[in-house]
Amino acid sequence: MKKFAMILSGSGVFDGAEIHESTLTMLAIKRQGADYEIFAPDITQHHVVNHITGEEMDEKRNVLIEAARIARGDIKEIGQLDANDFDALIMPGGFGAAKNLSTFAIDGENLKVNPGVEKAVKAFIDQKKPVGALCISPVIIGKLLGDVELTIGSDQSTAEALQKMGATHKQTTHGQVIRDSKYNVFTTPCYMLDANILQIEEGANNVVKAMLETMK
Amino acid sequence: MKKFAMILSGSGVFDGAEIHESTLTMLAIKRQGADYEIFAPDITQHHVVNHITGEEMDEKRNVLIEAARIARGDIKEIGQLDANDFDALIMPGGFGAAKNLSTFAIDGENLKVNPGVEKAVKAFIDQKKPVGALCISPVIIGKLLGDVELTIGSDQSTAEALQKMGATHKQTTHGQVIRDSKYNVFTTPCYMLDANILQIEEGANNVVKAMLETMK
Repeated sequence: MKKFAMILSGSGVFDGAEIHESTLTMLAIKRQGADYEIFAPDITQHHVVNHITGEEMDEKRNVLIEAARIARGDIKEIGQLDANDFDALIMPGGFGAAKNLSTFAIDGENLKVNPGVEKAVKAFIDQKKPVGALCISPVIIGKLLGDVELTIGSDQSTAEALQKMGATHKQTTHGQVIRDSKYNVFTTPCYMLDANILQIEEGANNVVKAMLETMK
Repeated sequence: MKKFAMILSGSGVFDGAEIHESTLTMLAIKRQGADYEIFAPDITQHHVVNHITGEEMDEKRNVLIEAARIARGDIKEIGQLDANDFDALIMPGGFGAAKNLSTFAIDGENLKVNPGVEKAVKAFIDQKKPVGALCISPVIIGKLLGDVELTIGSDQSTAEALQKMGATHKQTTHGQVIRDSKYNVFTTPCYMLDANILQIEEGANNVVKAMLETMK
Protein backbone atom coordinates (compact mmCIF):
# COMPACT_ATOMS: atom_id res chain seq x y z
CA MET A 1 0.00 0.00 0.00
CA LYS A 2 1.36 3.41 -1.01
CA LYS A 3 1.75 5.85 1.85
CA PHE A 4 1.49 9.64 1.74
CA ALA A 5 2.96 12.06 4.25
CA MET A 6 0.63 15.05 4.57
CA ILE A 7 1.70 18.42 5.98
CA LEU A 8 -0.96 20.63 7.61
CA SER A 9 -0.58 24.28 8.64
CA GLY A 10 -3.26 24.72 11.33
CA SER A 11 -7.05 24.41 11.01
CA GLY A 12 -9.08 27.02 9.14
CA VAL A 13 -8.67 28.70 5.76
CA PHE A 14 -7.73 32.21 6.93
CA ASP A 15 -4.92 31.34 9.38
CA GLY A 16 -4.28 27.60 8.92
CA ALA A 17 -4.92 24.59 6.69
CA GLU A 18 -8.05 24.78 4.54
CA ILE A 19 -10.39 22.26 6.19
CA HIS A 20 -12.21 20.98 3.08
CA GLU A 21 -8.98 20.58 1.10
CA SER A 22 -7.35 18.72 3.99
CA THR A 23 -10.33 16.41 4.62
CA LEU A 24 -10.93 15.70 0.94
CA THR A 25 -7.22 14.96 0.34
CA MET A 26 -7.40 12.38 3.13
CA LEU A 27 -10.56 10.95 1.54
CA ALA A 28 -8.98 10.89 -1.94
CA ILE A 29 -5.94 8.99 -0.66
CA LYS A 30 -8.01 6.35 1.18
CA ARG A 31 -10.50 6.02 -1.68
CA GLN A 32 -7.67 5.23 -4.10
CA GLY A 33 -6.35 2.46 -1.87
CA ALA A 34 -3.45 4.33 -0.30
CA ASP A 35 -2.84 5.54 3.26
CA TYR A 36 -1.49 8.67 4.98
CA GLU A 37 0.16 10.06 8.08
CA ILE A 38 -0.20 13.69 9.09
CA PHE A 39 2.53 16.11 10.19
CA ALA A 40 2.76 19.79 11.16
CA PRO A 41 5.41 22.09 12.60
CA ASP A 42 5.34 22.76 16.36
CA ILE A 43 5.32 26.56 16.03
CA THR A 44 3.07 29.48 16.98
CA GLN A 45 0.65 30.52 14.22
CA HIS A 46 1.45 33.80 12.45
CA HIS A 47 -1.85 35.03 13.90
CA VAL A 48 -5.42 33.95 14.70
CA VAL A 49 -8.25 35.18 12.45
CA ASN A 50 -11.95 35.42 13.33
CA HIS A 51 -13.39 33.49 10.38
CA ILE A 52 -16.64 35.49 10.42
CA THR A 53 -15.25 39.05 10.43
CA GLY A 54 -11.79 38.37 8.94
CA GLU A 55 -10.26 40.37 11.81
CA GLU A 56 -7.23 39.34 13.82
CA MET A 57 -7.99 38.02 17.31
CA ASP A 58 -5.88 38.73 20.40
CA GLU A 59 -4.87 35.07 20.86
CA LYS A 60 -1.97 32.75 20.24
CA ARG A 61 -2.43 29.25 18.83
CA ASN A 62 0.02 26.47 17.95
CA VAL A 63 0.06 25.07 14.39
CA LEU A 64 0.58 21.44 15.46
CA ILE A 65 -2.12 21.54 18.15
CA GLU A 66 -4.67 23.18 15.83
CA ALA A 67 -3.85 20.86 12.90
CA ALA A 68 -4.58 17.97 15.28
CA ARG A 69 -8.26 19.00 15.08
CA ILE A 70 -8.35 17.95 11.40
CA ALA A 71 -6.21 14.87 12.17
CA ARG A 72 -8.42 13.81 15.13
CA GLY A 73 -5.26 13.76 17.28
CA ASP A 74 -3.34 11.40 14.98
CA ILE A 75 -0.49 13.76 14.05
CA LYS A 76 3.28 14.06 14.49
CA GLU A 77 5.74 16.93 14.67
CA ILE A 78 7.29 17.54 11.25
CA GLY A 79 10.81 16.76 12.53
CA GLN A 80 9.66 13.13 12.80
CA LEU A 81 8.85 12.95 9.07
CA ASP A 82 11.37 10.58 7.46
CA ALA A 83 10.94 10.47 3.67
CA ASN A 84 12.28 6.89 3.69
CA ASP A 85 9.02 5.77 5.36
CA PHE A 86 6.75 7.23 2.65
CA ASP A 87 6.05 7.07 -1.09
CA ALA A 88 4.84 10.65 -1.58
CA LEU A 89 4.35 14.03 0.11
CA ILE A 90 1.23 16.21 -0.15
CA MET A 91 0.35 19.68 1.15
CA PRO A 92 -3.25 20.99 1.19
CA GLY A 93 -3.67 24.77 1.05
CA GLY A 94 -5.22 27.49 3.16
CA PHE A 95 -3.49 30.71 4.27
CA GLY A 96 -1.55 28.62 6.82
CA ALA A 97 0.72 27.55 3.94
CA ALA A 98 1.46 31.23 3.28
CA LYS A 99 1.56 32.40 6.92
CA ASN A 100 2.83 29.46 9.00
CA LEU A 101 4.64 27.04 6.65
CA SER A 102 6.11 30.01 4.79
CA THR A 103 5.97 33.81 4.88
CA PHE A 104 4.46 34.26 1.39
CA ALA A 105 1.45 36.25 2.69
CA ILE A 106 3.87 38.78 4.23
CA ASP A 107 6.96 38.69 2.02
CA GLY A 108 5.61 37.67 -1.42
CA GLU A 109 8.31 36.25 -3.70
CA ASN A 110 10.91 36.88 -0.96
CA LEU A 111 9.19 34.33 1.30
CA LYS A 112 11.05 32.22 3.84
CA VAL A 113 10.04 28.56 4.23
CA ASN A 114 9.78 26.80 7.61
CA PRO A 115 12.99 24.71 8.00
CA GLY A 116 11.08 21.49 8.77
CA VAL A 117 8.93 21.92 5.66
CA GLU A 118 12.00 22.71 3.54
CA LYS A 119 13.81 19.61 4.79
CA ALA A 120 10.77 17.40 4.09
CA VAL A 121 10.14 18.72 0.57
CA LYS A 122 13.83 18.46 -0.38
CA ALA A 123 14.08 14.90 0.99
CA PHE A 124 11.16 13.70 -1.18
CA ILE A 125 12.55 15.51 -4.25
CA ASP A 126 16.02 14.01 -3.64
CA GLN A 127 14.47 10.53 -3.45
CA LYS A 128 12.52 11.23 -6.66
CA LYS A 129 9.23 10.66 -4.84
CA PRO A 130 6.20 12.68 -5.97
CA VAL A 131 5.30 15.90 -4.16
CA GLY A 132 1.79 17.35 -4.41
CA ALA A 133 0.63 20.87 -3.50
CA LEU A 134 -2.91 22.29 -3.53
CA CYS A 135 -4.23 25.87 -3.63
CA ILE A 136 -1.58 28.38 -2.40
CA SER A 137 0.98 25.81 -1.16
CA PRO A 138 2.75 25.62 -4.59
CA VAL A 139 4.48 28.90 -3.60
CA ILE A 140 6.54 26.82 -1.14
CA ILE A 141 7.61 24.49 -3.96
CA GLY A 142 8.40 27.44 -6.23
CA LYS A 143 10.66 28.99 -3.59
CA LEU A 144 12.49 25.73 -2.83
CA LEU A 145 12.95 24.45 -6.40
CA GLY A 146 12.96 27.59 -8.55
CA ASP A 147 12.87 26.16 -12.06
CA VAL A 148 9.62 24.21 -11.78
CA GLU A 149 6.25 24.20 -13.57
CA LEU A 150 3.31 24.92 -11.25
CA THR A 151 -0.27 26.15 -11.06
CA ILE A 152 -2.13 28.24 -8.51
CA GLY A 153 -5.13 28.61 -10.84
CA SER A 154 -5.40 32.06 -12.42
CA ASP A 155 -4.53 34.68 -9.78
CA GLN A 156 -2.31 37.18 -11.60
CA SER A 157 -0.26 38.51 -8.69
CA THR A 158 0.52 35.05 -7.26
CA ALA A 159 1.45 33.81 -10.75
CA GLU A 160 3.83 36.77 -11.15
CA ALA A 161 5.41 36.09 -7.75
CA LEU A 162 6.01 32.47 -8.80
CA GLN A 163 7.67 33.65 -12.00
CA LYS A 164 9.96 35.97 -10.01
CA MET A 165 11.07 32.87 -8.06
CA GLY A 166 12.07 31.28 -11.38
CA ALA A 167 9.03 29.03 -11.71
CA THR A 168 6.77 28.70 -14.75
CA HIS A 169 3.08 29.26 -14.00
CA LYS A 170 0.42 27.39 -15.98
CA GLN A 171 -3.11 28.80 -15.82
CA THR A 172 -5.68 26.14 -14.86
CA THR A 173 -9.33 25.76 -13.90
CA HIS A 174 -11.20 23.45 -11.48
CA GLY A 175 -9.79 19.95 -11.14
CA GLN A 176 -6.84 20.42 -13.49
CA VAL A 177 -3.42 19.15 -12.39
CA ILE A 178 -0.03 20.39 -13.61
CA ARG A 179 2.80 17.85 -13.47
CA ASP A 180 6.39 19.00 -13.50
CA SER A 181 8.11 15.94 -14.95
CA LYS A 182 11.64 16.98 -13.96
CA TYR A 183 10.88 17.09 -10.23
CA ASN A 184 7.71 14.95 -10.23
CA VAL A 185 5.72 17.79 -8.63
CA PHE A 186 1.90 17.95 -8.94
CA THR A 187 -0.21 21.06 -8.33
CA THR A 188 -3.95 21.91 -8.56
CA PRO A 189 -5.73 25.20 -7.76
CA CYS A 190 -8.68 24.22 -5.47
CA TYR A 191 -9.85 27.27 -3.44
CA MET A 192 -7.34 29.57 -5.20
CA LEU A 193 -10.27 29.67 -7.63
CA ASP A 194 -13.81 30.62 -6.64
CA ALA A 195 -14.78 26.98 -6.07
CA ASN A 196 -17.46 24.88 -4.40
CA ILE A 197 -16.83 21.77 -2.32
CA LEU A 198 -17.51 19.42 -5.29
CA GLN A 199 -14.71 21.09 -7.22
CA ILE A 200 -12.37 20.69 -4.24
CA GLU A 201 -13.18 16.97 -4.15
CA GLU A 202 -12.39 16.78 -7.88
CA GLY A 203 -9.06 18.60 -7.49
CA ALA A 204 -7.97 16.47 -4.52
CA ASN A 205 -8.96 13.26 -6.33
CA ASN A 206 -7.17 14.24 -9.52
CA VAL A 207 -3.90 15.28 -7.88
CA VAL A 208 -3.74 12.10 -5.78
CA LYS A 209 -4.59 9.98 -8.85
CA ALA A 210 -1.88 11.62 -10.94
CA MET A 211 0.67 11.09 -8.17
CA LEU A 212 -0.31 7.42 -7.69
CA GLU A 213 0.03 6.78 -11.43
CA THR A 214 3.74 7.68 -11.30
CA MET A 215 4.26 5.28 -8.37
CA LYS A 216 3.11 2.14 -10.20
CA MET B 1 -33.38 22.64 -5.33
CA LYS B 2 -33.81 21.20 -1.82
CA LYS B 3 -32.10 23.16 0.91
CA PHE B 4 -30.67 21.86 4.16
CA ALA B 5 -30.01 23.88 7.31
CA MET B 6 -26.90 22.49 9.03
CA ILE B 7 -26.09 23.12 12.70
CA LEU B 8 -22.43 23.02 13.77
CA SER B 9 -21.09 23.00 17.33
CA GLY B 10 -17.55 24.37 16.95
CA SER B 11 -14.59 22.91 15.01
CA GLY B 12 -12.80 19.78 16.24
CA VAL B 13 -14.02 16.39 17.43
CA PHE B 14 -13.16 16.72 21.14
CA ASP B 15 -14.76 20.11 21.89
CA GLY B 16 -16.73 21.01 18.76
CA ALA B 17 -18.16 19.70 15.51
CA GLU B 18 -16.37 16.68 14.04
CA ILE B 19 -14.56 18.12 11.02
CA HIS B 20 -14.77 15.10 8.66
CA GLU B 21 -18.47 14.53 9.41
CA SER B 22 -19.23 18.21 8.83
CA THR B 23 -17.22 18.46 5.59
CA LEU B 24 -18.53 15.18 4.20
CA THR B 25 -22.14 16.11 5.04
CA MET B 26 -21.68 19.30 3.04
CA LEU B 27 -20.17 17.26 0.19
CA ALA B 28 -23.00 14.68 0.33
CA ILE B 29 -25.65 17.40 0.10
CA LYS B 30 -24.02 19.15 -2.88
CA ARG B 31 -23.26 15.86 -4.63
CA GLN B 32 -26.93 14.88 -4.48
CA GLY B 33 -28.01 18.13 -6.07
CA ALA B 34 -29.16 19.95 -2.95
CA ASP B 35 -27.73 22.97 -1.13
CA TYR B 36 -27.10 24.04 2.48
CA GLU B 37 -26.69 26.95 4.84
CA ILE B 38 -24.75 26.67 8.08
CA PHE B 39 -25.76 27.84 11.56
CA ALA B 40 -24.33 27.70 15.08
CA PRO B 41 -25.17 29.19 18.47
CA ASP B 42 -23.28 32.33 19.54
CA ILE B 43 -22.13 30.90 22.90
CA THR B 44 -18.86 30.14 24.68
CA GLN B 45 -17.65 26.55 24.20
CA HIS B 46 -17.98 24.27 27.24
CA HIS B 47 -14.18 24.08 27.12
CA VAL B 48 -11.19 23.92 24.75
CA VAL B 49 -9.37 20.60 24.35
CA ASN B 50 -5.80 20.08 23.09
CA HIS B 51 -6.50 17.52 20.35
CA ILE B 52 -3.07 15.88 20.77
CA THR B 53 -3.05 15.31 24.54
CA GLY B 54 -6.81 15.33 25.21
CA GLU B 55 -6.20 17.82 28.03
CA GLU B 56 -8.25 20.94 28.67
CA MET B 57 -6.56 24.20 27.64
CA ASP B 58 -6.78 27.45 29.59
CA GLU B 59 -8.65 29.29 26.82
CA LYS B 60 -12.13 30.41 25.89
CA ARG B 61 -13.53 30.02 22.37
CA ASN B 62 -16.89 30.87 20.81
CA VAL B 63 -18.92 28.12 19.10
CA LEU B 64 -20.11 30.33 16.22
CA ILE B 65 -16.64 31.79 15.52
CA GLU B 66 -14.94 28.37 15.59
CA ALA B 67 -17.65 26.72 13.47
CA ALA B 68 -17.00 29.47 10.90
CA ARG B 69 -13.65 27.74 10.21
CA ILE B 70 -15.50 24.73 8.74
CA ALA B 71 -18.00 27.05 7.01
CA ARG B 72 -15.25 29.27 5.52
CA GLY B 73 -17.00 32.25 7.13
CA ASP B 74 -20.37 31.54 5.52
CA ILE B 75 -22.37 30.98 8.70
CA LYS B 76 -25.24 32.54 10.64
CA GLU B 77 -26.28 32.67 14.28
CA ILE B 78 -28.84 29.96 15.01
CA GLY B 79 -31.52 32.52 15.99
CA GLN B 80 -31.65 33.45 12.29
CA LEU B 81 -32.62 29.89 11.29
CA ASP B 82 -36.22 30.00 10.01
CA ALA B 83 -37.51 26.50 9.21
CA ASN B 84 -39.82 28.03 6.57
CA ASP B 85 -36.75 28.76 4.42
CA PHE B 86 -35.50 25.13 4.40
CA ASP B 87 -36.56 21.61 3.44
CA ALA B 88 -34.54 19.71 6.04
CA LEU B 89 -32.28 20.05 9.10
CA ILE B 90 -29.05 18.13 9.67
CA MET B 91 -26.58 17.98 12.57
CA PRO B 92 -23.11 16.40 12.23
CA GLY B 93 -21.55 15.01 15.40
CA GLY B 94 -18.44 15.59 17.48
CA PHE B 95 -18.34 16.20 21.24
CA GLY B 96 -19.58 19.74 20.55
CA ALA B 97 -23.07 18.25 20.16
CA ALA B 98 -22.75 16.81 23.68
CA LYS B 99 -20.90 19.76 25.28
CA ASN B 100 -22.07 22.92 23.46
CA LEU B 101 -25.40 22.14 21.75
CA SER B 102 -26.43 20.09 24.78
CA THR B 103 -25.00 18.99 28.14
CA PHE B 104 -25.08 15.25 27.42
CA ALA B 105 -21.33 14.81 28.09
CA ILE B 106 -21.85 16.24 31.58
CA ASP B 107 -25.43 15.33 32.50
CA GLY B 108 -26.10 12.11 30.57
CA GLU B 109 -29.81 11.39 30.13
CA ASN B 110 -30.61 14.52 32.16
CA LEU B 111 -29.07 16.73 29.47
CA LYS B 112 -30.24 20.24 28.72
CA VAL B 113 -30.46 21.34 25.07
CA ASN B 114 -29.38 24.80 23.86
CA PRO B 115 -32.61 26.83 23.40
CA GLY B 116 -31.74 27.84 19.81
CA VAL B 117 -31.13 24.21 18.86
CA GLU B 118 -34.35 23.11 20.59
CA LYS B 119 -36.38 25.75 18.76
CA ALA B 120 -34.85 24.75 15.39
CA VAL B 121 -35.40 21.01 15.82
CA LYS B 122 -38.99 21.47 17.02
CA ALA B 123 -39.81 23.82 14.13
CA PHE B 124 -38.67 21.27 11.52
CA ILE B 125 -40.52 18.46 13.31
CA ASP B 126 -43.70 20.61 13.53
CA GLN B 127 -43.49 21.29 9.79
CA LYS B 128 -42.97 17.55 9.13
CA LYS B 129 -39.62 18.25 7.49
CA PRO B 130 -36.87 15.62 7.83
CA VAL B 131 -34.28 15.99 10.59
CA GLY B 132 -30.95 14.16 10.35
CA ALA B 133 -28.40 13.56 13.14
CA LEU B 134 -24.96 11.92 12.88
CA CYS B 135 -22.71 10.33 15.51
CA ILE B 136 -23.57 11.56 19.05
CA SER B 137 -26.05 14.29 18.02
CA PRO B 138 -29.06 11.88 18.13
CA VAL B 139 -29.00 12.37 21.94
CA ILE B 140 -30.38 15.87 21.29
CA ILE B 141 -33.26 14.40 19.28
CA GLY B 142 -33.89 11.76 21.95
CA LYS B 143 -34.15 14.42 24.64
CA LEU B 144 -36.47 16.67 22.62
CA LEU B 145 -38.80 14.00 21.18
CA GLY B 146 -38.66 11.15 23.69
CA ASP B 147 -40.59 8.41 21.90
CA VAL B 148 -38.37 8.16 18.81
CA GLU B 149 -36.30 5.43 17.13
CA LEU B 150 -32.61 6.31 16.83
CA THR B 151 -29.10 4.92 16.44
CA ILE B 152 -25.75 5.96 17.86
CA GLY B 153 -24.10 2.75 16.60
CA SER B 154 -23.38 0.23 19.34
CA ASP B 155 -22.11 2.11 22.42
CA GLN B 156 -23.92 0.49 25.34
CA SER B 157 -23.97 3.38 27.83
CA THR B 158 -25.15 5.95 25.25
CA ALA B 159 -27.84 3.51 24.06
CA GLU B 160 -29.02 3.06 27.66
CA ALA B 161 -29.13 6.83 28.20
CA LEU B 162 -31.31 7.17 25.07
CA GLN B 163 -33.66 4.51 26.39
CA LYS B 164 -33.96 6.37 29.72
CA MET B 165 -35.11 9.40 27.68
CA GLY B 166 -37.91 7.23 26.24
CA ALA B 167 -36.23 6.58 22.88
CA THR B 168 -35.72 3.22 21.20
CA HIS B 169 -32.12 2.48 20.24
CA LYS B 170 -31.35 0.38 17.18
CA GLN B 171 -27.85 -1.07 16.93
CA THR B 172 -26.17 -0.28 13.59
CA THR B 173 -22.82 -0.53 11.85
CA HIS B 174 -21.00 1.69 9.31
CA GLY B 175 -23.21 3.50 6.81
CA GLN B 176 -26.53 2.24 8.17
CA VAL B 177 -29.36 4.74 8.64
CA ILE B 178 -32.30 4.42 11.03
CA ARG B 179 -35.47 6.25 10.00
CA ASP B 180 -38.12 7.10 12.54
CA SER B 181 -41.20 7.27 10.34
CA LYS B 182 -43.41 9.03 12.90
CA TYR B 183 -41.16 12.07 13.20
CA ASN B 184 -39.20 11.64 9.93
CA VAL B 185 -35.90 11.57 11.85
CA PHE B 186 -32.77 9.98 10.33
CA THR B 187 -29.68 8.89 12.28
CA THR B 188 -26.37 7.19 11.42
CA PRO B 189 -23.41 6.33 13.70
CA CYS B 190 -20.28 7.68 11.89
CA TYR B 191 -17.43 8.19 14.40
CA MET B 192 -19.51 6.77 17.30
CA LEU B 193 -18.06 3.60 15.79
CA ASP B 194 -14.33 3.03 15.28
CA ALA B 195 -14.49 4.28 11.68
CA ASN B 196 -12.24 5.49 8.88
CA ILE B 197 -12.93 8.48 6.66
CA LEU B 198 -14.41 6.31 3.86
CA GLN B 199 -17.02 5.01 6.29
CA ILE B 200 -17.85 8.58 7.33
CA GLU B 201 -18.39 9.50 3.67
CA GLU B 202 -20.70 6.48 3.33
CA GLY B 203 -22.72 7.40 6.43
CA ALA B 204 -23.07 11.05 5.39
CA ASN B 205 -24.10 10.07 1.86
CA ASN B 206 -26.64 7.53 3.06
CA VAL B 207 -28.34 9.77 5.61
CA VAL B 208 -28.64 12.65 3.12
CA LYS B 209 -29.93 10.25 0.44
CA ALA B 210 -32.56 8.80 2.78
CA MET B 211 -33.70 12.29 3.76
CA LEU B 212 -33.92 13.47 0.14
CA GLU B 213 -36.03 10.43 -0.82
CA THR B 214 -38.77 11.52 1.59
CA MET B 215 -38.77 15.01 0.07
CA LYS B 216 -39.62 13.93 -3.49
